[in-house]
Amino acid sequence: MNKAEKTKQFIVEKTAPIFNVKGYAGTSLSDMTAATGLTKGSIYGNFTNKDEVALAAFDFNLHKVQRIIKGEMDRHIAIKDKLLVYINVYENFLKFPFPDGGCPILNTATEADDTHPMLKKKVADAINAWKNSITKLIEKGIASGELSVVNDAEQTAITIIAMIEGAIMIAKVTGKMNYRNAVMRSVENLINGLG
Amino acid sequence: MNKAEKTKQFIVEKTAPIFNVKGYAGTSLSDMTAATGLTKGSIYGNFTNKDEVALAAFDFNLHKVQRIIKGEMDRHIAIKDKLLVYINVYENFLKFPFPDGGCPILNTATEADDTHPMLKKKVADAINAWKNSITKLIEKGIASGELSVVNDAEQTAITIIAMIEGAIMIAKVTGKMNYRNAVMRSVENLINGLG
Repeated sequence: MNKAEKTKQFIVEKTAPIFNVKGYAGTSLSDMTAATGLTKGSIYGNFTNKDEVALAAFDFNLHKVQRIIKGEMDRHIAIKDKLLVYINVYENFLKFPFPDGGCPILNTATEADDTHPMLKKKVADAINAWKNSITKLIEKGIASGELSVVNDAEQTAITIIAMIEGAIMIAKVTGKMNYRNAVMRSVENLINGLG
Repeated sequence: MNKAEKTKQFIVEKTAPIFNVKGYAGTSLSDMTAATGLTKGSIYGNFTNKDEVALAAFDFNLHKVQRIIKGEMDRHIAIKDKLLVYINVYENFLKFPFPDGGCPILNTATEADDTHPMLKKKVADAINAWKNSITKLIEKGIASGELSVVNDAEQTAITIIAMIEGAIMIAKVTGKMNYRNAVMRSVENLINGLG
């Protein structure tokens, strides 16, 4: 990594939590200069505009979550145990190095949907990749006989994602972790019901 | 309604869709003056600040959704049919006078959670009221023998809300209505499984 790349990486690392907490519109240039200790000129010498910082910040936050999930899944052999990693991680995310502000998909999705096409595309890609990953796990489990044949592995995958994201949203806004846990019990039942 | 009340109502009606689409931070004073045709002085002669307009706009959007759900539920007698109204409304919201920008709870929740305590409180209250309303319906159905006894009516209620909100978020950001519909099939299965 050369000096310019290191500076870019530094700016992304320092601003990623702010974008995740305050959102795209809510993050100002002065937030970015305060978090990095750099001048406006230095930030915009390394990035074309706020958009470019926001896109890199989303990637940074997403990879943080993906690394946690992958690391936990690798500790398990059985498909069902791999799927149940989602319950453990999202119910105890404070025990993991989760991004400040929580799930970057949820945080970015609502704001990006109507006003920010490139960020929207990144969130959509992240959801599609997540759905494909769960679908493949279910199909692998069916092929190996670990799981019973379900009507529609993709429907199950997208339902699990909707439940997790809905649960996080509800818990964050109501402050009631027992609401999130109640939904997680339903996700657990769904996964355990797969065979 | 006196003239001042009418002007306030007019400002709320005209700005509510903008807050729902662009979010709190993304809605500017010039958006508000453009939407209403009023001057800054006129808007802030009727409201203390942007916060107060945003709070009234959230209420306006929420009541729009609540009226649709209530109207549809009133057309049905059976508890299960009342619960299935959520599927019909959220899967076909373009057929109903839904607020521009979609579900105000989802749109407001992610942005409000970390940065805007009064708006956050309003969204939390809306989710709690929604959860209580579904819980009561389920309990009524159990009492009348229409539904089988479930382990935890509140868990079921909050799970239904998480699935609906998660489904809307996913569909909006991916643009794939079949994802929303897949989750709605899972909600339908859950409701039909209640007895």
